[in-house]
Amino acid sequence: MLSVSQRALQMPASPIRKLVPFAEQAARKGIHIHYLNIGQPDIKTPPAFLQAIKNAQLDVLAYSHSAGNYPFREKLAQYYQRLGLKVSPDEIIVTTGGSEAILFAMMTCLDAGDEVLIPEPCYANYLGFAAETGIQVKSIPSDIESGFALPDREAFEQAIGPRTRAVLICNPNNPTGHVYTLEELRVLEDFCRKHQLFLFSDEAYREFCYEGTHYSALSLSSIRDQVVLLDTISKRYSACGARIGALISHHPEVVASALKYAQARLSPPTLEQIGAAAALDLPPDYFQATRQEYKQRRDTLVKLLNEIPGVFCPMPQGAFYAMARLPVKDADSFCQWMLESFSYEGETVMMAPGAGFYATPGLGLQEVRIAYVLEETALIRAMHCLKIALEQYPDRCMP
Amino acid sequence: MLSVSQRALQMPASPIRKLVPFAEQAARKGIHIHYLNIGQPDIKTPPAFLQAIKNAQLDVLAYSHSAGNYPFREKLAQYYQRLGLKVSPDEIIVTTGGSEAILFAMMTCLDAGDEVLIPEPCYANYLGFAAETGIQVKSIPSDIESGFALPDREAFEQAIGPRTRAVLICNPNNPTGHVYTLEELRVLEDFCRKHQLFLFSDEAYREFCYEGTHYSALSLSSIRDQVVLLDTISKRYSACGARIGALISHHPEVVASALKYAQARLSPPTLEQIGAAAALDLPPDYFQATRQEYKQRRDTLVKLLNEIPGVFCPMPQGAFYAMARLPVKDADSFCQWMLESFSYEGETVMMAPGAGFYATPGLGLQEVRIAYVLEETALIRAMHCLKIALEQYPDRCMP
Repeated sequence: MLSVSQRALQMPASPIRKLVPFAEQAARKGIHIHYLNIGQPDIKTPPAFLQAIKNAQLDVLAYSHSAGNYPFREKLAQYYQRLGLKVSPDEIIVTTGGSEAILFAMMTCLDAGDEVLIPEPCYANYLGFAAETGIQVKSIPSDIESGFALPDREAFEQAIGPRTRAVLICNPNNPTGHVYTLEELRVLEDFCRKHQLFLFSDEAYREFCYEGTHYSALSLSSIRDQVVLLDTISKRYSACGARIGALISHHPEVVASALKYAQARLSPPTLEQIGAAAALDLPPDYFQATRQEYKQRRDTLVKLLNEIPGVFCPMPQGAFYAMARLPVKDADSFCQWMLESFSYEGETVMMAPGAGFYATPGLGLQEVRIAYVLEETALIRAMHCLKIALEQYPDRCMP
Repeated sequence: MLSVSQRALQMPASPIRKLVPFAEQAARKGIHIHYLNIGQPDIKTPPAFLQAIKNAQLDVLAYSHSAGNYPFREKLAQYYQRLGLKVSPDEIIVTTGGSEAILFAMMTCLDAGDEVLIPEPCYANYLGFAAETGIQVKSIPSDIESGFALPDREAFEQAIGPRTRAVLICNPNNPTGHVYTLEELRVLEDFCRKHQLFLFSDEAYREFCYEGTHYSALSLSSIRDQVVLLDTISKRYSACGARIGALISHHPEVVASALKYAQARLSPPTLEQIGAAAALDLPPDYFQATRQEYKQRRDTLVKLLNEIPGVFCPMPQGAFYAMARLPVKDADSFCQWMLESFSYEGETVMMAPGAGFYATPGLGLQEVRIAYVLEETALIRAMHCLKIALEQYPDRCMP
């Protein structure tokens, strides 16, 4: 048989999904699994989103504009304007999910062999898209003890090399839940201005901040043309399956180049732009209920986690993830064991092993990412399950 | 301002869409444009497709499986089985349009610097995706005089080099309308077997053959594991805006590798898989009416084209495109002139200049691609317009 490409062999498998076969096996045995491994919220998609699609009078489900239909881009621009960000429809490329915005940003701004600096742990698929585009990731470790705050400026200065072209952050952060302070963003602004780097800012979880204020990288005026905003409606409106995201830039050449990639793939999905446009018309208080729900879950989850002997979980300020350190040597094996060999009252828990969110081998081995995407009662049961599992786990190692 | 990447600068702009600003200008002047430049059919999307989406009872618009939801893949597999192709759901990766199937196939099977052989003229975005993935295109010219039949085996043998890894065909062909005969496919089978190459076969227009039989590359049994089928529902069900395609392979490693790329981008759109599943339930005679409609248009278009002095258009056997040679030195300038400086009774025609479908500079300069995606009366008016335009065009050059 012909061999596949070297790049395909080197493409990392998703750390979020690689335990799926073990979960399927557990499910076949009748075990109820609390799925805390993936960022698929249980929050209802706004009925207005789905209703707008049902109401659409289309005879032909035609291509949209490659950059997204103009009326939808106008609504998106208004959404950013309400946040105090001056964005025009012509500065927006609607993408097929936030995923494609990441891919377009990387290809538009970096050549194969160029380097991007990413604080780690980071969204695992950044590493996948970097592998796809031949970009080298230089990761800068952040520390669980500091609540995964932005690493020191010094660490960034040391990481930079002749082929460094960009910094990539996720704010609020997936997987850590850290929300970057204005001071942290100013450090990045200064660093990117000094070294003439692009700043990619993934703000998928913007609305989900539980303490303080969210500052968008797009508000950093001294690097106005260097910021590329990566966005998606997936989490905002619990519409992950819609595949509607956006790339936003004030740099005309970045937009023009991203458009060429957009034209090659013809168009983002048409119907979901209609749904998303309706969702953008929701009153600003739409997010309050969801935010309150996530905050409640977060408080419960983090409290229960830290009550388990040997577990440490800093308080995330945003998104709907928590990174926790467990009293085990290898969280990967532990997560697999929980699916393969453990159940408590017919239940178990699926979590994402932390190592997959680090580019540096050996980091995050004791950590797991927990997505609080289930309602509180399920979270409470899941944390009780985890506590029992850690008591029974043969390879437990208390600090 | 920071410069974008070299690859972004080198990424070709879409030849189909680059005349758009001139068209917009003409439209602003009140000129009615017959859009024959792009493969957006006017055929109605099957009501069952849209109705299934309207009927879907979803509270949460969740991610689908990265490879596409299993029930949809089962229906797709049954569709291929009805065509006599033994495909299992596990051999299918549902992609975001046929576009993504092309991208995944290229990344999965070829490394940057590897070569793919493509008969030209070819679907222009193949060149875009090759540029994105760093793959070299070695194009093998086909000839308008032969109706764009497969180039001789000798031409393929001469084109092959140490880094050649694949051949890519589109069958029925966009832009030529050529349908490869079984003999032509046997030549490709033998060539790919001898040189151990992948055969990528884009069969988006499978149902639109007006003469003879369509043979799928997936039926070439001696290179069973080397064939990667690229497919889409866009044209089949006039659902271009749905963004549902598929990559199909009997090679387990190709499927497993494509799945890694699929997981990185999370999932194809969810709602449209529901719509497409309903469309796949339509009776096989669904295509008869559409096929008859396109055949009628083709017959009218090609007859009228060949009646214009100096124009030559071979009879396409499939898809809904015709490549015609015009009595002009540079069809690009002529197409622009028709939008910028010409109208007849308040109307003009937009066509896609042929050169953009060739990788070899200097080829196709006299050719245009015409998509017969408008009803017959509009086609008749458009061809009359073209006839008048060629009479008035200052740079006309009769052979």
